[in-house]
Amino acid sequence: MTALHADPATLPALAAGLLDDLRARRPRVHCLMNTVVQKFVADGLTALGAVPSMTSAAEEVAAFVHKADALVVNLGTLDAGRRQAIGVALDAAAREGRRWSLDPAHCDYSPSRAGFARALLAREPAVLRVNRDEHELLAAPARIATVTTGSVDRITWNGTALRVENGHPLMAQVTGTGCLSGALIAAFLAIEGNAFTAAAAAAAVLGVAGEIAARSATGPGSFQPALLDALANLSPADLIAHARISNEQD
Amino acid sequence: MTALHADPATLPALAAGLLDDLRARRPRVHCLMNTVVQKFVADGLTALGAVPSMTSAAEEVAAFVHKADALVVNLGTLDAGRRQAIGVALDAAAREGRRWSLDPAHCDYSPSRAGFARALLAREPAVLRVNRDEHELLAAPARIATVTTGSVDRITWNGTALRVENGHPLMAQVTGTGCLSGALIAAFLAIEGNAFTAAAAAAAVLGVAGEIAARSATGPGSFQPALLDALANLSPADLIAHARISNEQD
Amino acid sequence: MTALHADPATLPALAAGLLDDLRARRPRVHCLMNTVVQKFVADGLTALGAVPSMTSAAEEVAAFVHKADALVVNLGTLDAGRRQAIGVALDAAAREGRRWSLDPAHCDYSPSRAGFARALLAREPAVLRVNRDEHELLAAPARIATVTTGSVDRITWNGTALRVENGHPLMAQVTGTGCLSGALIAAFLAIEGNAFTAAAAAAAVLGVAGEIAARSATGPGSFQPALLDALANLSPADLIAHARISNEQD
Repeated sequence: MTALHADPATLPALAAGLLDDLRARRPRVHCLMNTVVQKFVADGLTALGAVPSMTSAAEEVAAFVHKADALVVNLGTLDAGRRQAIGVALDAAAREGRRWSLDPAHCDYSPSRAGFARALLAREPAVLRVNRDEHELLAAPARIATVTTGSVDRITWNGTALRVENGHPLMAQVTGTGCLSGALIAAFLAIEGNAFTAAAAAAAVLGVAGEIAARSATGPGSFQPALLDALANLSPADLIAHARISNEQD
Repeated sequence: MTALHADPATLPALAAGLLDDLRARRPRVHCLMNTVVQKFVADGLTALGAVPSMTSAAEEVAAFVHKADALVVNLGTLDAGRRQAIGVALDAAAREGRRWSLDPAHCDYSPSRAGFARALLAREPAVLRVNRDEHELLAAPARIATVTTGSVDRITWNGTALRVENGHPLMAQVTGTGCLSGALIAAFLAIEGNAFTAAAAAAAVLGVAGEIAARSATGPGSFQPALLDALANLSPADLIAHARISNEQD
Repeated sequence: MTALHADPATLPALAAGLLDDLRARRPRVHCLMNTVVQKFVADGLTALGAVPSMTSAAEEVAAFVHKADALVVNLGTLDAGRRQAIGVALDAAAREGRRWSLDPAHCDYSPSRAGFARALLAREPAVLRVNRDEHELLAAPARIATVTTGSVDRITWNGTALRVENGHPLMAQVTGTGCLSGALIAAFLAIEGNAFTAAAAAAAVLGVAGEIAARSATGPGSFQPALLDALANLSPADLIAHARISNEQD
């Protein structure tokens, strides 16, 4: 697998193959998701070809994890109920061998949320997704793939670093594109054993879809339905043609 | 009323009349609704011509039920607070003589949710709305009208069964169209005493609106605003022209 | 400042200047917001040029208020957790000198919510936003600017009353435009010391954006992305050309 990471030129084709695979297998992704963007994330996962579920109720989340192929744990709107449900969900995920991505949304705003995020990192998510401010606060060990999103996405793992130079400034004007990124990573984790590859595929898919959506958008409002359309209509050939993935040192 | 059900040819015109009536009367529908789709359902009810309200707080839900003409009880994202609020709301509904529809969303995922759904069925909703997986788990007595949604909607009541063959595959790619269906049923329950007729009208309205919306949509993103537009702009004549309702044995 | 209020002819240009200022300063607005419209309000604030945050968790809300420049407190879907979080947030706001707008959404439906709204009024929001039904129930002292939204918005403060005659009937068919209004008021409170002027600017901005959005909308569904686009693309010149602000006695 190391060879793959050393040759990012192969990643667009690899991502295109994973996209085909994901649509054929329709993985279930359970989302411990902030209340703000639940529908947007569910629609984004469905547009990609995955099957979302969304409860954060402690009394039923283990049953949903049992049905799921992967999880995303997002720390937005983190109240006591969701904290408890996340604990129950991760216990179930450990028991059932489900992998998960962690999105410590806005943990730089709240020491209590940052502390919880650190405790979750110790439970070994397959991928950590952060923005730059969150990354300054929260560093994962090298064995956990880390996606730092921004105008360029950076993906690091075991001493390797990739850059994914896709996306569009309108994405930053829509609440939830970062949260959706964490969920798409979980969808790819459900079908691809290598977390680094899964994260790169998710970043390229969302970034290329964003570029396509921006062509028809006239602002951040019209961009949102266009983004869901682009995710649903994205072809493996689009991905190969437009994904810009390179080694950081290039 | 049995004659009506025996002659589904009259149902499109009946539904068109109910649509006119609903827009004239603007019934209030209180929604015990999962957090994922609250805005989508509220916007759908408003587009139809109803007036939604949405709180699931136990301390205030009885006052909202008092103001409402009908209720929808949806079991998505079912935490302890919403379970308690549903109990309070149904006590108030019983006191005030408000009818309600039950949507046991994803009860097939969670035994705890399925158990709660069974307990609610014993409180006699006017209509049960399920998908096929949920229907296998949860059967209502014949006196409760049951809508089983899918590529064809099936409506059963007291030994009669109708098929509503409207809708579009894009509806299944949007989180919340099923939940919206349960809410539209409640809106029609507010103005039509026969639950079977109310359920058929709701299924035809949503299905025909979905077909109209699909004409201008380029994917599941653009389909959503188009669906709300279609619900708001749907004319009784559209409904009569496009509703496809038949007896199951036809 | 009184002179300003006596001459509403100057307000469109003043609002245009505030819009420029807001986009340059990008104030952070923390929202204690009902679960129904969190994403719509966050997207609306971002489209305007502000930076939203949204948690209602008591254990972390003070840290978010500390980072924020202003707050909006909305009483929709008001459960015990949000009541507690609002108390904590307003304690933090008092400590940190942050101003806030109050939106007692649907307090006319629930005596318990109305009582809570009255207690919050005593904590001196800078602006109260209500619809007509809520206004009948809840009167603020004259020193608190009050915006009563409707087909014409009315803004009162210390014996002065303005009318803002912008907007479009489609706004009433979208769940959350009132809630967004309260949030935009908070965004302007973050950059303008005079609450009356801030409220007038917010009302004019949302009303003019609504008029622009309605030009391309074909119903309440397509109106929503169009409204976000219009907020993002609104120019100070648009505002000067289209804002209709007058003294009530004119």
